[in-house]
Amino acid sequence: MEFSAKQIADFIGGRVEGNEQATVHTFAKIEEGTEGAITFLSNPKYTQYIYDTKATIVLVNEDLELEHPVSCTLIRVKNAYECVAKLMQMYASAMPKKTGVDSLAFVSSSAKIGKDVYIGPFAFVGEGVTIGDGSRIYPHVTIYDGCKIGKNVTIHAGAVIGADGFGFAPNTEGYEKIPQLGIVIIEDNVEIGANTCVDRSTMGETIIHQGVKLDNLIQVAHNCEIGENTVMSAQAGMAGSTKIGAWCMVGGQAGFSGHIKIADKTFIGAQSGVISNTKGNGEQLIGAPAIDPKVFFKSQAVMKKLPDMYRQMAQMQREIDELKAKLNN
Amino acid sequence: MEFSAKQIADFIGGRVEGNEQATVHTFAKIEEGTEGAITFLSNPKYTQYIYDTKATIVLVNEDLELEHPVSCTLIRVKNAYECVAKLMQMYASAMPKKTGVDSLAFVSSSAKIGKDVYIGPFAFVGEGVTIGDGSRIYPHVTIYDGCKIGKNVTIHAGAVIGADGFGFAPNTEGYEKIPQLGIVIIEDNVEIGANTCVDRSTMGETIIHQGVKLDNLIQVAHNCEIGENTVMSAQAGMAGSTKIGAWCMVGGQAGFSGHIKIADKTFIGAQSGVISNTKGNGEQLIGAPAIDPKVFFKSQAVMKKLPDMYRQMAQMQREIDELKAKLNN
Amino acid sequence: MEFSAKQIADFIGGRVEGNEQATVHTFAKIEEGTEGAITFLSNPKYTQYIYDTKATIVLVNEDLELEHPVSCTLIRVKNAYECVAKLMQMYASAMPKKTGVDSLAFVSSSAKIGKDVYIGPFAFVGEGVTIGDGSRIYPHVTIYDGCKIGKNVTIHAGAVIGADGFGFAPNTEGYEKIPQLGIVIIEDNVEIGANTCVDRSTMGETIIHQGVKLDNLIQVAHNCEIGENTVMSAQAGMAGSTKIGAWCMVGGQAGFSGHIKIADKTFIGAQSGVISNTKGNGEQLIGAPAIDPKVFFKSQAVMKKLPDMYRQMAQMQREIDELKAKLNN
Repeated sequence: MEFSAKQIADFIGGRVEGNEQATVHTFAKIEEGTEGAITFLSNPKYTQYIYDTKATIVLVNEDLELEHPVSCTLIRVKNAYECVAKLMQMYASAMPKKTGVDSLAFVSSSAKIGKDVYIGPFAFVGEGVTIGDGSRIYPHVTIYDGCKIGKNVTIHAGAVIGADGFGFAPNTEGYEKIPQLGIVIIEDNVEIGANTCVDRSTMGETIIHQGVKLDNLIQVAHNCEIGENTVMSAQAGMAGSTKIGAWCMVGGQAGFSGHIKIADKTFIGAQSGVISNTKGNGEQLIGAPAIDPKVFFKSQAVMKKLPDMYRQMAQMQREIDELKAKLNN
Repeated sequence: MEFSAKQIADFIGGRVEGNEQATVHTFAKIEEGTEGAITFLSNPKYTQYIYDTKATIVLVNEDLELEHPVSCTLIRVKNAYECVAKLMQMYASAMPKKTGVDSLAFVSSSAKIGKDVYIGPFAFVGEGVTIGDGSRIYPHVTIYDGCKIGKNVTIHAGAVIGADGFGFAPNTEGYEKIPQLGIVIIEDNVEIGANTCVDRSTMGETIIHQGVKLDNLIQVAHNCEIGENTVMSAQAGMAGSTKIGAWCMVGGQAGFSGHIKIADKTFIGAQSGVISNTKGNGEQLIGAPAIDPKVFFKSQAVMKKLPDMYRQMAQMQREIDELKAKLNN
Repeated sequence: MEFSAKQIADFIGGRVEGNEQATVHTFAKIEEGTEGAITFLSNPKYTQYIYDTKATIVLVNEDLELEHPVSCTLIRVKNAYECVAKLMQMYASAMPKKTGVDSLAFVSSSAKIGKDVYIGPFAFVGEGVTIGDGSRIYPHVTIYDGCKIGKNVTIHAGAVIGADGFGFAPNTEGYEKIPQLGIVIIEDNVEIGANTCVDRSTMGETIIHQGVKLDNLIQVAHNCEIGENTVMSAQAGMAGSTKIGAWCMVGGQAGFSGHIKIADKTFIGAQSGVISNTKGNGEQLIGAPAIDPKVFFKSQAVMKKLPDMYRQMAQMQREIDELKAKLNN
């Protein structure tokens, strides 16, 4: 597929600066642009690259001011980042898409599979599972018995949906397994990353609400709930029965204690450890235990000075003692 | 399967308060109870729900005092949590259980598989592997050559047993692989979570002793040893040759340096970093580096005051200097 | 295969102390030595074991001084650790090695597979993938369409190469997927651990340069780059577009923010959180946020004293106030 600068500008509502007939057939990052590629400039950190890029077309924000002329053709738009995303979506939707259940997949006879579903080789779909229309189940995904997957859900390779929650009751000889009799419900438009695990509940459901995006290698324990449109980065983990609200953002490697509630629109920094309920919507938290980011970063800054503070305190104590001695004489 | 309050009370040794003929066919959490469900109340945090629950029967502790009458039927028992677990085990053991080697599993001809073993589709069992009676190997489990799995072991989907330990010796051009010639031994009654990795040893064995429970996405490096009945939560990781004792509890996302020893009955908090041998049995540790929880939480509390302390110290120094000046005049 | 002390000493250029005709057929750790096993002593922490080991032969450093006589046969060499690695490599290379594409693997018709490649059961190799000579793809590996794998690459079970990067653009109703149109390039002599994930780039490539060794359960996000011969321990994670230089060492569970650059030969401690560019080659960093290890460990040491410092400061303030009062009288 090949497009001219004019065609693209018309499609996204932009203004061409340079050769309207310049054509492109692929996308590239600005620092790795090649002839025939379209790229974009949005983050000011990358502005330097526009003067040397070998890309044929660069999408830029309307108000970009150039310090020298450039050899590439520019298309000026309101929001370069959004426009390149739109172009990529158009391009991707034009690419052929696999559908159907691969002959090397295992789908239980009692599973119910919607229309236009893709199930890749070596995917495992257990008994009684339902998968909604348009969902994509990549190779090596495991969906245990009874779990319910909504429409337009994407589950990447190696993800495990519905393995037993981690529940054991100690006795004198060891631990007895607490049967995990619940299921996992994944609502519409959810995307689940590679090798991520969502455990079935002890009873009732572990629920991932619509629009949630989970990155790779995430752990969602039994009886958890994640509110709609919350996004969670790789290697984050939730202990059992914790509920995260809607529209939250969770950084990579963050962890949540069990049985806590996180309100809507909470922002949790990477590697944070959240150990208690949040106070209300829109809170920001970072650190382990997680606290207000302002306090966290100030404390961190002072942390480096701690050894000096320790020495200074000893010195001050000596000075105080000297003053006392003097005064008492 | 349907049971009456009387039948259940007789089975677990409880006392019915309400309708002895009320019947249930499923389990539910108290806050999500539905008609026909039995639930339980153990954690006082959830007491509020007993007045509104739609569950038909609620197991409660003998000494629970109600502030208002409830519409559900109660069964009073010594320990509601233990009783519901017992009921769930009874229920689960009555459910049909898959056994046998699925035709879509790969089992090497030299592997030895015990009685009543389940091996799911796409499980891989390498050469010379042994699997004891009653074990359950879920889909997508990989067991590399030579590893030994005991009796009544459960390994969840995507777990990898016996991949090469991470051993490389640097030379001037790069790293040379140190062959990993050992195996993994998993003893009886162990449960291993989804996508957890237990690496084979360089020489000798990586050993998971009987009764150990590992959650999902855990890393156990080469030559590690985990003592009997130790439980470890999701995303924890052990570096090479570290030995953890028996009956320990390890929180999620905790990490262990290599070549250290953790005594029996040690409690390690979530996200801790343990970098040295513990001092003796029964220690509690938290933080990174891990320290006594009392010290940790006190330090964390003071941490938030650090910026204030820093300012106060500067102020105190000024005051001392003024006092000195006055005294010297 | 059985070898005498003399044969081994000749092969590695060592000197026998004891029975030259003693023979061994396996390797063991010194504390687990058995008759017929060769072991080694390199780490002084393990010296105690040489007096009791049941191993037949022990490789030791030239300059080892014994406090008592030993019953095993010694072979003295310049570097016992390197020599045992060399012996193990010799032993491993003599063992039969699986090659070829297993009939239970899925390899797309458009994939190009080099010579002497092993592709295990249930491995998935997507369209247009190339795999260089001598590479080993273990069971349950997923290689998404278009990714390029070099020569002598080892990818362990469950690893996922080329799943979609985590890219979504928010709109008022939820998030829209940003298509991930790029690929993953894995250069020669790379080893990738079990269940590790390397995401495809949004555009362009995610690149793992030659000689890199990644442990298990690692996350490499879209558009990342890892320089040659860098080693990374289990459960570490990189956010998008971050570039790590050559010959770096990254500890387990460490995390990297997105869009940062780590210079060559950087050493990152376990569980660190690296949130900004490093200053130059050879830096050492630890902690979250990661700082100089000397400052980190000093601060950690003082951390434990923080509650005492807090009390002492209050006391000092009282003393200062008393001094002031006295002076003003």
